[in-house]
Amino acid sequence: MPKQLNNEKKLQLLNNVAIVLMEPKYPENIGAAARCAMNMGISQLIIVRQEEPDREKMLKMATHKAAHLIDGLQHFHELEQALAPFSHVVGTTARQGRKRRIENSPRFIFEGLLPLLLDNQAALLFGPEHRGLTNEDLKYCQMTVTIPTADFSSLNLAQAVAILCYELYWTMMYSEKTTTFTPKLASNFELEGMYEHVEEMLNRIGFLNTNDSTYWMRNIRHFLGRVGLRAKEARIIRGFCHQFLWYDEQLKKEK
Amino acid sequence: MPKQLNNEKKLQLLNNVAIVLMEPKYPENIGAAARCAMNMGISQLIIVRQEEPDREKMLKMATHKAAHLIDGLQHFHELEQALAPFSHVVGTTARQGRKRRIENSPRFIFEGLLPLLLDNQAALLFGPEHRGLTNEDLKYCQMTVTIPTADFSSLNLAQAVAILCYELYWTMMYSEKTTTFTPKLASNFELEGMYEHVEEMLNRIGFLNTNDSTYWMRNIRHFLGRVGLRAKEARIIRGFCHQFLWYDEQLKKEK
Repeated sequence: MPKQLNNEKKLQLLNNVAIVLMEPKYPENIGAAARCAMNMGISQLIIVRQEEPDREKMLKMATHKAAHLIDGLQHFHELEQALAPFSHVVGTTARQGRKRRIENSPRFIFEGLLPLLLDNQAALLFGPEHRGLTNEDLKYCQMTVTIPTADFSSLNLAQAVAILCYELYWTMMYSEKTTTFTPKLASNFELEGMYEHVEEMLNRIGFLNTNDSTYWMRNIRHFLGRVGLRAKEARIIRGFCHQFLWYDEQLKKEK
Repeated sequence: MPKQLNNEKKLQLLNNVAIVLMEPKYPENIGAAARCAMNMGISQLIIVRQEEPDREKMLKMATHKAAHLIDGLQHFHELEQALAPFSHVVGTTARQGRKRRIENSPRFIFEGLLPLLLDNQAALLFGPEHRGLTNEDLKYCQMTVTIPTADFSSLNLAQAVAILCYELYWTMMYSEKTTTFTPKLASNFELEGMYEHVEEMLNRIGFLNTNDSTYWMRNIRHFLGRVGLRAKEARIIRGFCHQFLWYDEQLKKEK
């Protein structure tokens, strides 16, 4: 995506994508598709089907949160009409043959698709539960996408929709190499103060013999070093050392 | 993953991952989870639930292709027992607040997790449909993962399982990140024993007031969880606790 797009604009671009379900048999799957489309910022849902689907069954799976997608559901009898507004149609197909082809995996396809959304409408087309898309259906598609799987059996329709909506959203929002947010970590100064404090405490209870204190402290530094301690956490550890040394003094005074 | 692993070996490593469903309400969701786990090469399915789920309802969604996962379903009554064999537990949580955090997204978490599978068992833990995981459940998790979404409403359980299984499979088979071999880590059983020991010691010195012991122990679990403690390191920490408690007894005896 062009670098200048902010998150708000990226979310707007997702309005240019529609989920199109070709002859879905179960209204529950239409409802589940609505719910996850909404979760992932996709607001157009289209079905191609002869009969009106049972509204109650759709709403049950959509939940009230995605009820507006069911209210706005577009219903066509012919695939060609349903796809008419879209300049890019991506057909979903199950894996054919043994070869694992990375080039029509969702990630690669969507990286190519998303820049088109700046000026185009795109559709993701899913076939019926029992057979997938036919060659006749696929002729309307400019590209196909295949969700990689470990075996040849097909995915559940609602789950396939969920995976592609997720991948679309991810690719839209994060596809550029963004630097990861890292919380503020303890400085070396804070860490060394903490290690001194820890060593003092361990010496007090005789855990560090003079022989092997280097060995033990190295072990302790080794695993605490792996954590990436935050300043607050280094203070908690020092708080514990402080409390321990105080407790020890009290016990000795009482003697 | 080390570059020398071929696809066959990578698929084998997925056997070291389990999907763990905490109190799933609907047997249909267990079945749907089985189906997509199988699609993505994951063969262990575990549930934590008081009652036996309805087998017919599970099988309907699993389809005959994933019936063997339902036959091999492991059923526990307590989460702690279910998680005992795993050295890495990844808890799934819904997005909190407005910030979009890339660092606990599935892709980033799994890139770190997969190299561990060479020598460790890992679990992906999902909460119940209506409320997700509690803080009590999350204390067993070394990391959390959040599926990025455009809004705050939660995902359907079966779809969340599908997205994470897909991401796990993708990252295993196609991620180009190469990482170093990771040694065997402490199991959850070893970790829980260690945390008990730590809590006993902190109680002894009055570091944990009854009011906020949960708060402090959560902080301690939080940063020790990030380390990826090895079995040997968990033993060092227990050795220290043991030594401290012994020292304390001696001082008291002398009084």
